[in-house]
Amino acid sequence: MKLVIDCLGGDHSPEANIDGVVAALQQNDALTVILVGDEAVIRDRMASYPTLAGRIEIVHAPGVITGEDKPTDAIRLKKDSSMIAAIRLLREREDADALISNGATGALVAAATLRIGRIRGIRRPAFCPLLPTMTGGIVGICDSGANTDIQPEQLQQFAILGSRYLQSVYHIEAPRVALLNIGVESEKGDDLRKTAFPLLSATPGIHFVGNMESRDLLSGKYDLVVCDGFSGNVLIKATEGTALELLKKLKKDIYSKKRYQLGALLMKDMFRKEAAFMNYQNYGGSVLLGTEKIIVKGHGSSDAAAFAACIRQAVTMYDSHMNELIQSDLLSLEQTEGEATHV
Amino acid sequence: MKLVIDCLGGDHSPEANIDGVVAALQQNDALTVILVGDEAVIRDRMASYPTLAGRIEIVHAPGVITGEDKPTDAIRLKKDSSMIAAIRLLREREDADALISNGATGALVAAATLRIGRIRGIRRPAFCPLLPTMTGGIVGICDSGANTDIQPEQLQQFAILGSRYLQSVYHIEAPRVALLNIGVESEKGDDLRKTAFPLLSATPGIHFVGNMESRDLLSGKYDLVVCDGFSGNVLIKATEGTALELLKKLKKDIYSKKRYQLGALLMKDMFRKEAAFMNYQNYGGSVLLGTEKIIVKGHGSSDAAAFAACIRQAVTMYDSHMNELIQSDLLSLEQTEGEATHV
Repeated sequence: MKLVIDCLGGDHSPEANIDGVVAALQQNDALTVILVGDEAVIRDRMASYPTLAGRIEIVHAPGVITGEDKPTDAIRLKKDSSMIAAIRLLREREDADALISNGATGALVAAATLRIGRIRGIRRPAFCPLLPTMTGGIVGICDSGANTDIQPEQLQQFAILGSRYLQSVYHIEAPRVALLNIGVESEKGDDLRKTAFPLLSATPGIHFVGNMESRDLLSGKYDLVVCDGFSGNVLIKATEGTALELLKKLKKDIYSKKRYQLGALLMKDMFRKEAAFMNYQNYGGSVLLGTEKIIVKGHGSSDAAAFAACIRQAVTMYDSHMNELIQSDLLSLEQTEGEATHV
Repeated sequence: MKLVIDCLGGDHSPEANIDGVVAALQQNDALTVILVGDEAVIRDRMASYPTLAGRIEIVHAPGVITGEDKPTDAIRLKKDSSMIAAIRLLREREDADALISNGATGALVAAATLRIGRIRGIRRPAFCPLLPTMTGGIVGICDSGANTDIQPEQLQQFAILGSRYLQSVYHIEAPRVALLNIGVESEKGDDLRKTAFPLLSATPGIHFVGNMESRDLLSGKYDLVVCDGFSGNVLIKATEGTALELLKKLKKDIYSKKRYQLGALLMKDMFRKEAAFMNYQNYGGSVLLGTEKIIVKGHGSSDAAAFAACIRQAVTMYDSHMNELIQSDLLSLEQTEGEATHV
C-alpha cells in the first residue's frame, strides 16, 4: 500500500508528520510513502533512518495552505503547496492508494471533491469525525461540514458511507444510525428531514433507529448520526466547544481557592482522565468518505502519535475493502429502487 | 397589565404555576391574572389568599397537551386544554396582554402562530432562549426551533427581534449580533448564510459583528446568535446536553473512589456553583418574539420561583414597550429598502 503524505499543514508540521510516518513505516512493512513538502527538510529528517530509504519517495512542494486561504483560490493559485501537490499525486499516480493531511479542511475538501474520483453513484464525499460517548464507545457524525446544501438522497448516502466505515475500521457489526433532528418523533423537522426519514427507513443494509436530538449525541445510544454538513458542523463544534469551555472554567475555579486546589490534588488522576476523554485528538482523524481513494484529515494540532494513528486508520480502511462494500451497497440500492419503480 | 396563565403543563403543575402567580401578584400590585386550568383545583389552592381574589379570574379548561400530542391535532382536538383555551383568551380578550405557559413547545408555537396576531411585517414568530456565558453574561439564540425552513430576510428579523429583547429586558445597550455559521470568514456557509451575511451587515439599528462558530457560543464575545430554527435547536440542545452529560460523568467518576469523594468534599460549594451555572432553569423562560401579545414559555421543569421569573420577564417586556420599538425598526427598515430600490 502506498500513501501520499502531506508533510506541511498542522501546528507541528513537518516534524510531527514525518515522525508519524517513520513510526508507521516501522510498524508496518507493507507500507511505502510519497512525502510531499520541503525536500531539503524532509531529506534532513529522514537521514536518521537509512533503512527506510527504499520505501520513501520525496516530492518537493514547499508551499503551505492556511485556514485564511479561500479554498478555490488555494487550488488555483497555490499549485506548489504540499496539499495541492499531494492531491495531484493521489489522482495521477495509479499506485497511490491514500492521502493523509493535517492541512486546512476547506481547501482539502474542495480539492478532493474537484480532483479525486468518487465511488460510482456517490454525489459528493462527506466528512465523518468521531466523538467518545458516555458509555465508553464512539459515535460518528456524517457529514460534519463538507456539504452544506444537500438533498435527502445524500443523507441516505451518508448513512451507507458511515455505516461501512464504522464496520470496517471499528468493527461495529450493525451501527445504529440516527437522523439528527429537532425532536425524536418521526414527523419532526424541516422538509429535508421529513423526506429523508422514510428514505432512511427503507434503505437496505443499514440499521436506522430514528431521529436523534443533539443533546443525546454522547449518550451511547447511537453509533452514527447523519446530518447535512451545516448542522453537523454546528453539532460537533458545539459539543467539543462546550466540553473544552467547561473544563477551562473548572480549572479556573479550582485555582480561585487553596481549599479547592487541595481537593483537586486528591482527584488529579481523575481530572487527567476527564481531560483525555474530552480531547478530540485522541479519537483519530476525520475521514473523507465517498472518494475512490482514501483521504484522512488529521487534526491541525496532531502530534506524531496522532499522525501515525491517522495512517493506521487509512490502512485499515484499505485492507478491509471498505470502498468495495460501499460500491456493492449502492448497486443493491439502485436495484431496490429500480424494482420499486416497476411495481 | 393582565396575564393569561396556563396552569397546566410542566412537571410541577398546577402547584408550581399557581404558587408562582401568587408570588408575582404579591410583588406587583399592578398585575391581574386569568388562571386557566382545572377550576376546582385552582379555587382550592387560591383559597388561602383571599386578598388576591379581586385580581384573579378563573377559566375552566382541564385538558393537558403533552409532547406526544401532534401540535396540529392538539389545536384541533384539544380545545378544552388549558393551553389552547389560554391562547384563545389571549386572542379574544382585548384586556389580555401576555401569556405564560410551561406546556408542550410544539403545540404552543403552532397555536400562537395560527391564532395570535404578529407585529406588522414579521413573517413568523421566533423563540429566543438564553444561556449563560463564561464571562458571566448571557447569550440569546434566535430562532431556537420555531422556524425550520426559512428565508434570509427572516434571519434579519430575528436579529431585530432578539436585539430589542436583550435591550428591553436585560439592558444590553448594543447587543453584539452574530450569524451562526461553519466558519468565521464572511463567505462561509450555505446559500442561506451567504445571502444573509450582507443583509445583516446592512441592517440599520443592529450591531452585527459577523459569523460565529458554534464552539464560541459561551465565549462571551456575542450577545445574540441568529440562526434558522433547525440549527439553533441543534446548537442549544448540544450545548446544554454536553454540559449535563459531563456533569453526570464527573459525579459518577467521583463516586468511583473514596479519595475522589474526599477531594470533592473540599470542593463541595464549588461544584454546587458549577451545577447551578449549568442549570438552564436559572436563565428564565424562552420568549416567543414577534407576536403582538407577549408569550413566555417556561421550562417544563419549572418550580414556583422559575414560573414567577417568567412572569417578571413578561412584565418587563410589556413595560419597556419592546414591541413598539420592534414595529418602528421594521418601518425604518422598510423605508431604507424603499430608498435603496429607488436609487
